[in-house]
Amino acid sequence: MRQLEFFYFLGSGYAYLSVMRIGPLARDAGITVRWRPFNVRTVMAENNIALRSQTAKVKYMWRDVQRRARTHALPFVNAPIWPTDPDLLANRVAMVAAEGGWCEDYTIESFKAWYLEGVALGDRAHLEHVLRPLGKDVDAVIAQANAPAAHERLKMETDAAREYGIFGSPAFVVNGETFWGDDRLEEALSWATGRRRLQDVH
Amino acid sequence: MRQLEFFYFLGSGYAYLSVMRIGPLARDAGITVRWRPFNVRTVMAENNIALRSQTAKVKYMWRDVQRRARTHALPFVNAPIWPTDPDLLANRVAMVAAEGGWCEDYTIESFKAWYLEGVALGDRAHLEHVLRPLGKDVDAVIAQANAPAAHERLKMETDAAREYGIFGSPAFVVNGETFWGDDRLEEALSWATGRRRLQDVH
Repeated sequence: MRQLEFFYFLGSGYAYLSVMRIGPLARDAGITVRWRPFNVRTVMAENNIALRSQTAKVKYMWRDVQRRARTHALPFVNAPIWPTDPDLLANRVAMVAAEGGWCEDYTIESFKAWYLEGVALGDRAHLEHVLRPLGKDVDAVIAQANAPAAHERLKMETDAAREYGIFGSPAFVVNGETFWGDDRLEEALSWATGRRRLQDVH
Repeated sequence: MRQLEFFYFLGSGYAYLSVMRIGPLARDAGITVRWRPFNVRTVMAENNIALRSQTAKVKYMWRDVQRRARTHALPFVNAPIWPTDPDLLANRVAMVAAEGGWCEDYTIESFKAWYLEGVALGDRAHLEHVLRPLGKDVDAVIAQANAPAAHERLKMETDAAREYGIFGSPAFVVNGETFWGDDRLEEALSWATGRRRLQDVH
């Protein structure tokens, strides 16, 4: 089966574009997507990437996301609260969601709340806003997200990302080939549909 | 006149793709390109970007360049010698070339020598290989590149890049709007041809 692994972090600025785009694009291409949130902070630290201190780059990022959102006809209001999810609670809730089969819905609604409604990820307000319409018990989900299994799953998913050579979010893996950045989404999907035969060198 | 400022560094891995692509694309779009080499090391250091120590990212970069070269039907042999041009001599020769009006030719031939023939930029072998076919006196050009005016011009071009919020190479500036990365070349050219009216938000 044609499959693409979608690695992202709840709180990654550029991931917004992919979260909003990947569903329809993958469906059109006949590709199944595995939504795999991971802790990008760990792998960025391991790679000496300190985005928060890269002033010009951060300023550029929000302008670039704004332009690209317009290009892709996606809504954009303002640069979102960033950094966000300091305790990784939103990302550990994603582990619960992945375990339960509702990670895609949770992710899309979370990115919308973060980007379009000015919510900080991991705040009680974020979780209530997103989990209730999904029919989830907010306190029960938070309790699960704080249990050892969710911590362990996040660590394992981060290990998997590292194994694929991932150092940032979003990233896509197709048959062991890694692509970094929303601007490589189409290329990753092409690769998954056989384009790799045209493009691969060795 | 429709113009695009092309900021790049001789020794930047991704700049190869833009150096090889920008001429025909800009001609087709009716855009004049100003070739503006600058010292990317200075602005990367100012932005706490230490690519050399970002192991996974560097590994990814060469694979990504290889894939993108294939996509754009550009030659690719191996990852080039990197880092290169330790004393910035190749970049200061580019200042002499810009002053003399032969920066585009010098840049294209230098990237070809670096990527396709395994030459280290700034080495005597590189400069002889590239400058002689351009009809230049190698020793005279090196003397000019070591004179204060070339150092000063490189500093001024780097200041100009910084003013535009540039933190990496390659980058493109159109009417004060900055685009970073070879994958934004088409977007920058579209912007220069009026697409900005469709895309601009504020």
